[in-house]
Order: sequence, then structure tokens, then C-alpha cells
Amino acid sequence: MPYQDLIAKDLPLSIEWKNGELFILDQTRLPHEMVMEKHETAEQVWDTIKQLKVRGAPAIGVAAAYGLCVDLKDKIDLELNDFLKLLRERAAYLDSSRPTAINLNWAMKRMVRFAENSAVSNVNDLYNEIVSEAESIHEEDKNISFGIGKMGEPLIKEGMGIMTHCNAGSLATSILGTATSPMYMAHNNNVQFKVFANETRPLFQGARLTVWELAKAGIDATLITDSMAAHMMATGHIDMVIVGTDRVAANGDVANKIGTLGVAILAKHYGIPFYVACPSSTIDMNTATGGDIPIEERDGAEITTIMGKKVAADGTQTRSPAFDVTPNALVTGIITETTMIAAPYEQGLKDFFKGK
Amino acid sequence: MPYQDLIAKDLPLSIEWKNGELFILDQTRLPHEMVMEKHETAEQVWDTIKQLKVRGAPAIGVAAAYGLCVDLKDKIDLELNDFLKLLRERAAYLDSSRPTAINLNWAMKRMVRFAENSAVSNVNDLYNEIVSEAESIHEEDKNISFGIGKMGEPLIKEGMGIMTHCNAGSLATSILGTATSPMYMAHNNNVQFKVFANETRPLFQGARLTVWELAKAGIDATLITDSMAAHMMATGHIDMVIVGTDRVAANGDVANKIGTLGVAILAKHYGIPFYVACPSSTIDMNTATGGDIPIEERDGAEITTIMGKKVAADGTQTRSPAFDVTPNALVTGIITETTMIAAPYEQGLKDFFKGK
Repeated sequence: MPYQDLIAKDLPLSIEWKNGELFILDQTRLPHEMVMEKHETAEQVWDTIKQLKVRGAPAIGVAAAYGLCVDLKDKIDLELNDFLKLLRERAAYLDSSRPTAINLNWAMKRMVRFAENSAVSNVNDLYNEIVSEAESIHEEDKNISFGIGKMGEPLIKEGMGIMTHCNAGSLATSILGTATSPMYMAHNNNVQFKVFANETRPLFQGARLTVWELAKAGIDATLITDSMAAHMMATGHIDMVIVGTDRVAANGDVANKIGTLGVAILAKHYGIPFYVACPSSTIDMNTATGGDIPIEERDGAEITTIMGKKVAADGTQTRSPAFDVTPNALVTGIITETTMIAAPYEQGLKDFFKGK
Repeated sequence: MPYQDLIAKDLPLSIEWKNGELFILDQTRLPHEMVMEKHETAEQVWDTIKQLKVRGAPAIGVAAAYGLCVDLKDKIDLELNDFLKLLRERAAYLDSSRPTAINLNWAMKRMVRFAENSAVSNVNDLYNEIVSEAESIHEEDKNISFGIGKMGEPLIKEGMGIMTHCNAGSLATSILGTATSPMYMAHNNNVQFKVFANETRPLFQGARLTVWELAKAGIDATLITDSMAAHMMATGHIDMVIVGTDRVAANGDVANKIGTLGVAILAKHYGIPFYVACPSSTIDMNTATGGDIPIEERDGAEITTIMGKKVAADGTQTRSPAFDVTPNALVTGIITETTMIAAPYEQGLKDFFKGK
């Protein structure tokens, strides 16, 4: 068994591709039920992304790539040009399901470019090739998480307390996670540490997903509310923060789940290092600064209603930004699959992509 | 109608004392149901405080003072010394219901001292006197909120955005609130402003109580999750923070609902003034610093279960501190019923009490 599979043996899979069929774990039902849903159309995958049944920038990219394939499966009788035209339309449609995560856009662009550049002349062969390309994205994503883990693992020292926000875990990727991958590797190497997972309102990804998957793998994980983060830092429980991201701008500003900015400011106040872990595909050199990243505003009902129960009065006025932007000055380092990038980010990120 | 009653006409009452009977609003059922529960024993009042049916430092003090009375109502056949002994025991018992709020301790001490110093020689008269003393505490609390409102109102300028955390509202006091009293007064004087209420996990006092009571009074109030506070500040929506407190130490450190410290650090980061509003009885000159304030740790089930629904897996490890301590350096000013106290707090608070 390869090393990464050994580490991953207790981790749930967010996406499975079996015999040409796409199964996606419905994460909205976690941790109470583990249901793998079969997906056969782009509409189904679009809804699944929109409803956050699959979430996490890397996992969304993989799901959309496979989603594009299954949607086109019964279109192989089309003319090549018509097939390509449809593929472009369906890719654009899938790309519209969530605006902030750049990996979704990246995966759709990659699939379209791949199909357009393919040398094959019949649609059946092209279909098989795009499936292979989706499988490559999936496989690469696993290796990327593995790379991030190897880059980040040395940061985790015996006895540390690590805070994370939202779920940049195995569930947010194909396996191992981004922010959590260094944790899984350190744990696998018998380093003892504690993780404090912020519950991450409004959708409780920390409570439902992160603390659950970490505990499942045997890591000492404690759930706190977002409102407790400052107190845990003030009382000396936290030595490091690691989070994921949905998009890094060319200047190193980081968009991530709402609440991340607050944690970064608290970490700065207490002199605690604040790391961001992500595949290099999450870095968008076409987005100059965090101010250029679109921030999705979600339905206020996600705040006022929890599992069907109302916590606020009818008619309560709300705001519900799903993401926030952490300025590069608050980021200690960006952990990618090959490199740890530090300030000054504008130059560092330019150099990073020049080297690719 | 007195001015304060005019302002308060749309506000719910946390405590009502009618014909010698004590009624307490069950705030755990808000905003869905408004139920006034009759209380006849100290045990009942103890549970009501413990379960947060009544909460907010000033309101707890008033509830306990009346609670002590109703508990002793059928003990007027006792000898005077036995009655006083029982009164001391019951006061100590009520005082044990919550450790952080100092007003509870203050109210119980005041009732005991009053009874001990009373000149009356029969228990029936003493009972009537302690009832009058409880009524005085209640009446004084109303006037204190009114005083805080008058002190704080000039801070609120046309067009401002004000953030508050937890509920230091009308519901947390006898009427008008502490943090909210300046808001009610400014609103009454036709100043236009917006309030952003943090929902305040784990128990949602912001969602269930603050945004509800403000909206009821016609104030433009918006609910956000605690995790959105930083984003709202970063995007220029917040010009001032006002919160309440459960205890102020002699050096100006402030204990308040968990999450307050985080808001204070964010406010500091963005150069936003951070005010604390409280009756002077909340300032405890016998507590040297915030480090000496006991922090209640509550049941983790309050994090993992919401209105009977589980958001985290069974067996999830939690921490649940109910309060945190904001260091005096993060506090722009303490608004009391008579004075605005600013740094240096150690001297300022000493002078304040010397003047009394």
C-alpha cells in the first residue's frame, strides 16, 4: 500500500469514480449519515456544488471535471464540433455554480482546453480522453495533498496546539486535505499535538466535518465555537493556525471561508504564525488583489435556521458573506505542493510560477 | 408617562414584580414564545439563572433579590435570628448559581447587609422591608440603564454602524439595557444608525434576543454570525462597538460573554472604538485583574446540540468557556450611569469610587 494510502486509510472519500460512474458524498448529511450519491447530469452536479454537498476548492474542481464527463456520456453520437460546443457550454454552466473558488474555474478551463487541443477525430475517443483527463485531475489532486502534507509536516512540533477554520480536510479534497494534510502526516509519524477546530458558522463545517474526520483518524481534536478562538489563543492553547483557501490573489491576499480573516487578525495580535495551505492551482495570477475576488453572498436563512429549527425571529434582517479576504500582511506562509512561499508575496508568487 | 417609559414602550420586560409575586420571562424560548413564569422558591430562581432563562448581569441581580424574598415569604413565623440565618443561607445559595457576573453577588450581599442592619424587631416587618429593598434594587437598575443611555447617547452619530455582541439589552436588565440603552435613546431622538448584532454562539443571545428586541423597537438591526464580524469591519460597516459586561476588574479588564475579546481585538486592528457599558455595581474593586475573574465552563452539549439537533458527532471533544476577559488596553471607555471612564483605568476606577 503506498504511503499516502496508509495515512488515508481511516479517511472518508469526498468523490469516487468507479467504472465510469460518479459518486459524490453528501457532506450536508455528515456526520450523521454517509451517503454516496450517483451523479449523471451537469444539473445534478451544479446543484450538489451549490448546496455544498461537495465543497472545498480542490474537491469542487474534481467533481466538476467528472460532472462534465457524465453529462456528455450520452452525447457521443454528436458531430465533433457540436460535441465541443456543448462541452464548452456545459463547462461554463458548471463553472457558474460557485463564484469564489478558483479551482472550479481552473478545472473547467483545463477540460475545455484539453478537448479543444485533442488530436482525436471521433467523439467516442474524445469522450474517453476527457474522462482520462478528469481522472488525471483527480489523481494529481491526491498527489498535491500529499505534497502539501510533506511541505507542512515539519511545522508541527510535539505538544503543539493547532487551530484550523472551516474544513480544508480530506473531505475538501480528493484525500488528506490541504490544511489537514500536514496533520495527518505528523500524526502518522507519531507526533503528539492537539487541534482546535472552529465550528465555522453558519454551516458548521468545523463541527460537522473537520473535528469528525480528524477524530476518526485518531487525532486529538477539540471543537470550539468561532467566538472562542480569541480566548483559546489568549490562554496559550494555540501555537499555530493552518487554514485552506478558495483563492489566492497575485499579491498573496487570501480568500477563504468567512471567519478566516478574524482568526488571522487574532493570530497576528498574539504573535501566532498563520499558514495557508493550497494547491498551486488555487493561486490566481489573474486576480491582482483580494479586492478583486468576488465574494459570494448566501441566503440569510442559512444563519437564521439550523437543521430546520429557527434561531431568530421571522423577518430578521441578515448579511451572509460566505468568504472573507485575509490581507497578505497577516499570512506567515503559503504552503503549496512543492514550495513554502513567504512575504513579499507579489514577488514570491511571480517567481513561483516562472519556475513552473 | 416618564421619558424612560416612553422610550421603553415597545420593549419586553425580563422581570415583573406584581402584588408581591415574581414573574420572570423565560428567555430560552425567545423569540418564538413570550412566557412569564411565576417563581416561588429559591431553587426555582437558582435553576432559572443557571439555565439562562434570565441572564444579563443586572437582571440576574434583580431576579435573585426578589427570589430571596419569595423564598422567605412563608418563613415569617420564624424567630428573627433564625430568619436572618436562613436569609444568609438562601442568599449564598442563590449567589452560587453563576460565578462570573458580579451583580448577583453584589445584590445578595446588599440584601443580607440590609436585613442585618434593619432596626425592625419582628420578622413580618423585616420581610416587608427586604421586599422594599428588592424593589429599590429593581427601580435603581431602571434608573441606571437610563443613566447609561444618557452617558452613551452622544457617541451615536447619524449614519453610524454599531456592532454589539451577546445581549446587553433590555432583556439583560430591568429595562433599556446597558449597551443598548444609548441606542434606544438615540433612536428615540430620531438619529438614524444601523446595528450589527453578532449571533453569539453557543447560545445565540444575539440572534434570539438582541436583534429581536432592537427590531421590535424599530431600530435598523442586522444579524450576522460571530465569524462575520471581521469582514463587516474590514468592509467599513462598523464605526463603533458597544458591549455589556459581567464584571470589570479594578484595573479595567472586562469579563463578558465569550467572543467579546475577539471583537475587541478586531476593533483595535481596524481602529474602531470599543466601549463597555455597565452599572457601577458591575465594577469589582476586590478583583484586581481579569486573571482573577472566575470563568464559568459550560456543558459542551450547548455547542454540539442546537434546539435538540446534533451538529457534531457523538463523542466530539469540546471546550466551552462561557466568558472571556478583554484586557483594559483594548477598551476605549467604560460607560457607567454617571461617568465615562477612560484609560488609565486603575486610577480612573479608584477615583470614580472615591467620589461615591
